[in-house]
Amino acid sequence: MPILELMDYAGVAVFAATGALAASRKLLDIIGFLFLAGVTGIGGGTLRDVILGVPVFWVENPTYLIVCASVAVIVFLTAHLVESRYRLLIWLDAVGLSAYCVMGAAKGFDATGSMTVAVVMGMLTATFGGILRDLLSGEPSVLMRPEVYVTAALAGASTYTVTAAIGTPIIAASLAGLAVAFTVRGGALRYGWAFSPYRPRPGRPPDDVM
Amino acid sequence: MPILELMDYAGVAVFAATGALAASRKLLDIIGFLFLAGVTGIGGGTLRDVILGVPVFWVENPTYLIVCASVAVIVFLTAHLVESRYRLLIWLDAVGLSAYCVMGAAKGFDATGSMTVAVVMGMLTATFGGILRDLLSGEPSVLMRPEVYVTAALAGASTYTVTAAIGTPIIAASLAGLAVAFTVRGGALRYGWAFSPYRPRPGRPPDDVM
Amino acid sequence: MPILELMDYAGVAVFAATGALAASRKLLDIIGFLFLAGVTGIGGGTLRDVILGVPVFWVENPTYLIVCASVAVIVFLTAHLVESRYRLLIWLDAVGLSAYCVMGAAKGFDATGSMTVAVVMGMLTATFGGILRDLLSGEPSVLMRPEVYVTAALAGASTYTVTAAIGTPIIAASLAGLAVAFTVRGGALRYGWAFSPYRPRPGRPPDDVM
Repeated sequence: MPILELMDYAGVAVFAATGALAASRKLLDIIGFLFLAGVTGIGGGTLRDVILGVPVFWVENPTYLIVCASVAVIVFLTAHLVESRYRLLIWLDAVGLSAYCVMGAAKGFDATGSMTVAVVMGMLTATFGGILRDLLSGEPSVLMRPEVYVTAALAGASTYTVTAAIGTPIIAASLAGLAVAFTVRGGALRYGWAFSPYRPRPGRPPDDVM
Repeated sequence: MPILELMDYAGVAVFAATGALAASRKLLDIIGFLFLAGVTGIGGGTLRDVILGVPVFWVENPTYLIVCASVAVIVFLTAHLVESRYRLLIWLDAVGLSAYCVMGAAKGFDATGSMTVAVVMGMLTATFGGILRDLLSGEPSVLMRPEVYVTAALAGASTYTVTAAIGTPIIAASLAGLAVAFTVRGGALRYGWAFSPYRPRPGRPPDDVM
Repeated sequence: MPILELMDYAGVAVFAATGALAASRKLLDIIGFLFLAGVTGIGGGTLRDVILGVPVFWVENPTYLIVCASVAVIVFLTAHLVESRYRLLIWLDAVGLSAYCVMGAAKGFDATGSMTVAVVMGMLTATFGGILRDLLSGEPSVLMRPEVYVTAALAGASTYTVTAAIGTPIIAASLAGLAVAFTVRGGALRYGWAFSPYRPRPGRPPDDVM
């Protein structure tokens, strides 16, 4: 499945870049760049493989580690050229999220045959790298911001799973999942798309809360 | 083992409810409710199964995911009716803790035959969901509060393990563990039961510190 | 491999001691000491074994749990005798880091035969216990401080892996890795060794940034 392998490398590389950019915002040294790039790049996929009980992808194929390290060094040498490192970080994070929700759903579906598990694995593994990055670098978690983040992963994973389950070729299902996730997340970043937050005032009817 | 399966579903459902209540306190959207409910509901059991090297329970049986999602939606629609969502959260958390410390000890004992491992698995998995919930929602961890939290899990897991190991029927051992854990945790919540904290002043004899 | 087993027990014991010292700094009760000592002592090795897909070391051999519990009780009874618990914590942490980076690299190399995986497993598992301890006790993560922490683990793991891979006896390779890691970390603590942090000002040539 070359399309899925390509998306796996792309997901690892862009998540690694977001980790390195977080390191640059915290003024860490080169080893801090390598560490945050590595944890962010491989964290989601590691969780996915451990939960599914399959061999962890970077233990089988250490090339992924080389990718993370290379990205960390490149960001260390070039991040000062970027005007807004935060903007770059969140857009790269959107790309990583989109690639990983498809990869997670695909691996989850292959391993279990359950669509529910596939969607949850896609959502979980697409968001876990960013959650780790935020926890370790001491940023407020992206989960707590009023942004459509988990939703984008959920939408992309569901799109892939449903289209793949009805027999669409893997390449088309993958691109559909990727497009949906990136559109939802990009729309949130660009136009502020969001669900209404929960409003706790008593007396409001539930449909108004929703 | 229907009693253990029932306690497993109950533990997942009430932990999911505490995650959803934490989401309501943070004014998240419906997806935030689903995410925090899911992570809190299945987090402890996932850690348990991964460490024991057995198939992760919700990968084998996705019904658990449906339970979490249903609980999240119900809490989203009804939490405004609850007078003190924080009180409800900590009491449901006490129920989840009690159910999970028995489940964790039972699965740990079945998988390894070691009573020490059983007690530690019970304690670890009963507390891990709540730790994850607090870390992800940015609340101070329940571990750091002067409350008998880990202790309750330890007491319940020990009670189950010892009574089961001496040949008591599983149903009786389970109910005993459940009752001990809930009594200890409930006593802490209701009457402020607590150990003395560590006191750092030099010159005090150790037995006074204890 | 008695040298590696010895280092494993030593790593678990000193990390457990740092967890218990963190508990004393937060004025937790005895159960808090046990919990933080346990999580810090076995956290890194648990992650290592789960990622490598081998049985988790303390599930196979619960003696490690007894070691953690004993250390927690000893620290609870004696920590008030220590003049600076923080200094003791960071120096013990340096010993644990050194022992664990060798153990992690050794187990990673044995399980996969890949030097890259061995180095990364050594680095990851040596730092993970301390990261968990800091996250759970609410301290700023040691990763964010301008100290040579991850670097020391990386240097020790690399030294072990390279010397073991060229055929040096395990005992010599282990001691070399231990010595390099402890020297690098100790130098950082004693003499303030550090890499330059990333400097974000634009216009600086990259070699100045490095």
